[in-house]
Amino acid sequence: MAIRKGKYTVELTGGVVISCTAGVAGKKESEGPLREFFDKTFADDRMGESSWEKAESALQTAALDILLQKAGVMPSDIDILFAGDLMPQCIASTFALRDFGIQSYGQFGACSTMAQALSVGAVFVESGAAQRAAAVTSSHFCSAERQFRMPIEYGGQRQPTAQWTVTGAGAALLERGGRGVMIKRITPGRITDMKLRDTANMGAAMAPAAADTLLRFFSDTDARPADFDLILTGDLGTVGSRLLNELLLSEGLDISANHSDCGCMIYDISSQDVHAGGSGCGCCASVFCSHIMPKLRDRELKNILFIATGALMSPTSSQQGESIPSIAHLVQISTV
Amino acid sequence: MAIRKGKYTVELTGGVVISCTAGVAGKKESEGPLREFFDKTFADDRMGESSWEKAESALQTAALDILLQKAGVMPSDIDILFAGDLMPQCIASTFALRDFGIQSYGQFGACSTMAQALSVGAVFVESGAAQRAAAVTSSHFCSAERQFRMPIEYGGQRQPTAQWTVTGAGAALLERGGRGVMIKRITPGRITDMKLRDTANMGAAMAPAAADTLLRFFSDTDARPADFDLILTGDLGTVGSRLLNELLLSEGLDISANHSDCGCMIYDISSQDVHAGGSGCGCCASVFCSHIMPKLRDRELKNILFIATGALMSPTSSQQGESIPSIAHLVQISTV
Repeated sequence: MAIRKGKYTVELTGGVVISCTAGVAGKKESEGPLREFFDKTFADDRMGESSWEKAESALQTAALDILLQKAGVMPSDIDILFAGDLMPQCIASTFALRDFGIQSYGQFGACSTMAQALSVGAVFVESGAAQRAAAVTSSHFCSAERQFRMPIEYGGQRQPTAQWTVTGAGAALLERGGRGVMIKRITPGRITDMKLRDTANMGAAMAPAAADTLLRFFSDTDARPADFDLILTGDLGTVGSRLLNELLLSEGLDISANHSDCGCMIYDISSQDVHAGGSGCGCCASVFCSHIMPKLRDRELKNILFIATGALMSPTSSQQGESIPSIAHLVQISTV
Repeated sequence: MAIRKGKYTVELTGGVVISCTAGVAGKKESEGPLREFFDKTFADDRMGESSWEKAESALQTAALDILLQKAGVMPSDIDILFAGDLMPQCIASTFALRDFGIQSYGQFGACSTMAQALSVGAVFVESGAAQRAAAVTSSHFCSAERQFRMPIEYGGQRQPTAQWTVTGAGAALLERGGRGVMIKRITPGRITDMKLRDTANMGAAMAPAAADTLLRFFSDTDARPADFDLILTGDLGTVGSRLLNELLLSEGLDISANHSDCGCMIYDISSQDVHAGGSGCGCCASVFCSHIMPKLRDRELKNILFIATGALMSPTSSQQGESIPSIAHLVQISTV
């Protein structure tokens, strides 16, 4: 049974574990510091497909295929799947999952979708609505770039605050376990809008959402930042990470000792020309599934907060002069 | 506790009720057969906003405002909100909900989103993860038309199989009740793709998804079509409804005696020039919330199936020659 903890947080008591994960990534990511951790990398970012959107679907299909293989389960063993991406009408997920025949509910939280899908999936397993649930998300630099920014061929100069959309995907399997890497608490995000309008500075737009969720989590629970081996945001990049720390410090909360950000981890920021770091639904998904999860399984990490952030604007809303509303969903993951 | 029923269906035993609903609609809908049932109608489809997308957000805001007022609850009384729409990056929902400060997880199931949001919300309440959850979805003829089909000003001729996107929104409140209009079972949809490519004939693309879900529901349970006062699909329109009945008959299932479709109910098809009927996330949402829910509360209807269907393509996937994958989510609603 899930228990409300404070005003905003849910404690899961049913022993929902992340039993298996898989992460895949593209060429640039395979040249970065996490290269050895991905289950699969692609040397050609087209993945043999005829469009960038189809290539992104191929990433999600690959992540789910590897997950099924590693976990030793069939698609029919998964009761429900929660998937999402950045494309209009979530087509990367739809076309990736079309042939699996798994029941699914599409999720949209922009770059926060992996934390959202894990949260909703965990509640389904907790309640008994699913024996096994899966969460899958993806992004692709080229499909995102031409949608949100410029045609790739245009070769536009990127601002120093801009983040680089990760070509990658992650997939996770959730089931009742009682022991292992357990989802202990979730704090859903609230839409937060500080009226920032610069779509080349998502980190600044998303940092207040991450701060809001973290402050609500710490207020709801008796936890302190020092209780966690890692407070992992995704994907604020360098600009957003600095702002998050400043915002929290001004509220008396210091997470600097154990804060890391997926967008800062996936690339070598000094040499890979990614400006403020990585972003996209595939960034924190591939970092968590490929890099963080093995550390949890090996008990190198025992208690972490995973806070994925999303910028909820669209090209249309930005063209209409709107600001960038953001959201951040938190998942507490503990090894038991 | 939720209980798996057969391979695909979930039975909710915790007494989750739909305690309140609100539905709003635009001008054309206010001239149709359901005119007297909407909580609010707008004579100007711009709703005083500067763009069609902002007008759609205003619809969702209005539906949620009226829901809160009718239910006598504050935004802070709602633990979690599940919302979605047809716009890229679900901006209609994001900008509608921005100022409410309610925790939320964005949902995407195209026109099936209301059934999905009710299902996910019901599981959250069932599990104890939320005391109160809300589901909100919308669509707007003009924001959808210019995205999926033609610029409005172009005045393009519409095919006879085309459906008319409903300008409307619906909002529902879910809580533990034990008595009332209860969500009894859910059957999540599976992505179904019969390789149809005609985006002016969504009914044909979605009918197989509705058939798949209904067949799985009836196979999982001991229910028969005659057990239900109403088997309500949304939004297949006239073409899709006929195909659904044919598909099910070929499998030995006859739902014709009590089948209706939201897309056929919201307009007077013979006089309102809507060709094959209504569609959009706001169609079955407003029909269910404004028209069906009062009949359930008055016990005029006691046991219904609500199967909302969605076509999961995007303009990009269609331009790239892809077919139209579809999905249909089922919710069994009973008066206790």
